[in-house]
Amino acid sequence: MPSSSEPVVIAMDWGGTWARAGVADRSGQLLWSGRRPNVSGGTQRQLLDGAEDILAKALEWCAGRPVDAIGVAAAGPIDTDNGTFHNPPNLGVLDGVSLKPLWEERFGLPVFVGNDANLAALGEYHFGAGQDARGMGRPVRTLIYVTVSTGVGGGVIDHGRMLLGAEGMAAEVGHMVMDSSSNAPQCQCGNYGCLEALTSGLSIARMARERLARGEFCSSLTGISPDNLDAGDVFAAASAGEALASEIIDQVLHHLSLGLVNLLHLFNPDIIVLGGGVTDGIRDAGLLEVIKERVSGRAMSPRHREFSLVATGLGYTGGMVGAAALAWEQLGHAPGG
Amino acid sequence: MPSSSEPVVIAMDWGGTWARAGVADRSGQLLWSGRRPNVSGGTQRQLLDGAEDILAKALEWCAGRPVDAIGVAAAGPIDTDNGTFHNPPNLGVLDGVSLKPLWEERFGLPVFVGNDANLAALGEYHFGAGQDARGMGRPVRTLIYVTVSTGVGGGVIDHGRMLLGAEGMAAEVGHMVMDSSSNAPQCQCGNYGCLEALTSGLSIARMARERLARGEFCSSLTGISPDNLDAGDVFAAASAGEALASEIIDQVLHHLSLGLVNLLHLFNPDIIVLGGGVTDGIRDAGLLEVIKERVSGRAMSPRHREFSLVATGLGYTGGMVGAAALAWEQLGHAPGG
Repeated sequence: MPSSSEPVVIAMDWGGTWARAGVADRSGQLLWSGRRPNVSGGTQRQLLDGAEDILAKALEWCAGRPVDAIGVAAAGPIDTDNGTFHNPPNLGVLDGVSLKPLWEERFGLPVFVGNDANLAALGEYHFGAGQDARGMGRPVRTLIYVTVSTGVGGGVIDHGRMLLGAEGMAAEVGHMVMDSSSNAPQCQCGNYGCLEALTSGLSIARMARERLARGEFCSSLTGISPDNLDAGDVFAAASAGEALASEIIDQVLHHLSLGLVNLLHLFNPDIIVLGGGVTDGIRDAGLLEVIKERVSGRAMSPRHREFSLVATGLGYTGGMVGAAALAWEQLGHAPGG
Repeated sequence: MPSSSEPVVIAMDWGGTWARAGVADRSGQLLWSGRRPNVSGGTQRQLLDGAEDILAKALEWCAGRPVDAIGVAAAGPIDTDNGTFHNPPNLGVLDGVSLKPLWEERFGLPVFVGNDANLAALGEYHFGAGQDARGMGRPVRTLIYVTVSTGVGGGVIDHGRMLLGAEGMAAEVGHMVMDSSSNAPQCQCGNYGCLEALTSGLSIARMARERLARGEFCSSLTGISPDNLDAGDVFAAASAGEALASEIIDQVLHHLSLGLVNLLHLFNPDIIVLGGGVTDGIRDAGLLEVIKERVSGRAMSPRHREFSLVATGLGYTGGMVGAAALAWEQLGHAPGG
């Protein structure tokens, strides 16, 4: 039970697998959180029911405490005006649904919606790595968040403001072409040579499968059925010193570093925050420093070199924390203020 | 002589070769303009004298008309707080000079300073391609300007606001790595495989020289001394149907298109404006449409595909017009308003 009468917001992170909801205060603290799995292969109504159910649970928990708004971080292309989904790859049945009017009527509260990776960046800026940096006396003017996971996504905050683009579809960092050659691997998006096709968890597994299928040997991977082989197996084999896996991880670091060089030159950030499962693998293998050195070594000027590179400390709560930051911002309160 | 008492601003574009100054009204019209060449190999004092001389001429022209501010678009890295140059490649002797305090004292007017490519983007947004699009009833929320010239640079305006980055060094679009292979060509910046190393005027000439030196033949290029061969010669040979030159131009279009795909996915623009001498060559050869098709064909979503691609109509005045837009903005007047 909440012990204070300070107002709160409800924060939701709706991904391809879970709908998570939380109750957040002005400092971005999650006082409560819960989740519901999306019904696998469910209809639009079933998915909405699940998300609305966990939102209702969050509201119920507040029991009399003033709730000012609902902030929603959603996976995939979504416009920020009406919260309308546009062909979301992982929530396909929600195409065309406008969350903002739907839930404003349903819950009687202002609803603010954004893309989950953009909002994770906003969450990091106000309550995560950005807050940590400010706490150490370092300025945070421009922050980039990059998630390297099943796919690769991101968000950019420039001088406190989220980069949106014309339709709110900016910062698709996974879909920068990094390999312009005629044998570049194909990406999930249909293009060839995208950063995602060279560094994502799915891509790491694909690279390993391709090389094993060509008859290359790696003792700890050769025994795994190709269907079950994942990026974690490749990281494990690399840390055991196996050459094939180490080469794959080195190529991932090469392309990820070059992708971050591009972001350095396009956005001139003070801080780059990495998240996602592949980042966990990189961090656990002690390789974040390697990326930092490679990126710094390619910076085009000393001023572009003045950035810090950190792994997210918000973990799976990043989307919710960002949704809370959005809600406070839109309500006219400086988040954290 | 000015015929009205409407206030004006002085707009300067200080590049590697010329210091241009103009007198601009609220609608971005240049009522007068002039230029001085930078003294070749000149000292810091000589360069400043030349620029101050043409500024003084502009002020003199105003003769009693109210002048509200001076806006300066300068080539190379410059901070927007004090107008301090940071190792500008084409104005090296000005390193460390802070234009804002210097000229505010010298001329007794507020001085606002920005990078020339960023300000060209701002000029296009308010007074160039952006104004044209709005005139045709099309929204302009996010505009990208890319100059493909001796080098490659750019600027981004997102929902009316210039993307700056932590130190004002954002939008270095020429230094996106597009070729991550081990045989990528080296860029002027020291890196390998940058967009600039694959598409700039200097790079087009370099590619032609390299292929001719390997014994490849191109009747209209083989007769030119390698030192004199430039991008214009390669465009001319390509338009005459010569295979080697056509292949080089096709590679330039390939990499430029992929570079614009990256910008499409990172910034989700309504409009991309191309400027610079290489763009002139592309436009004159009727190849802008080819770029548009290649970029659209690679867009990751229908929403990313909703952009227009145009060549600048501002020509060499883009920097001055952008400097005027900056000055009006900083004075609190909506440019064009």
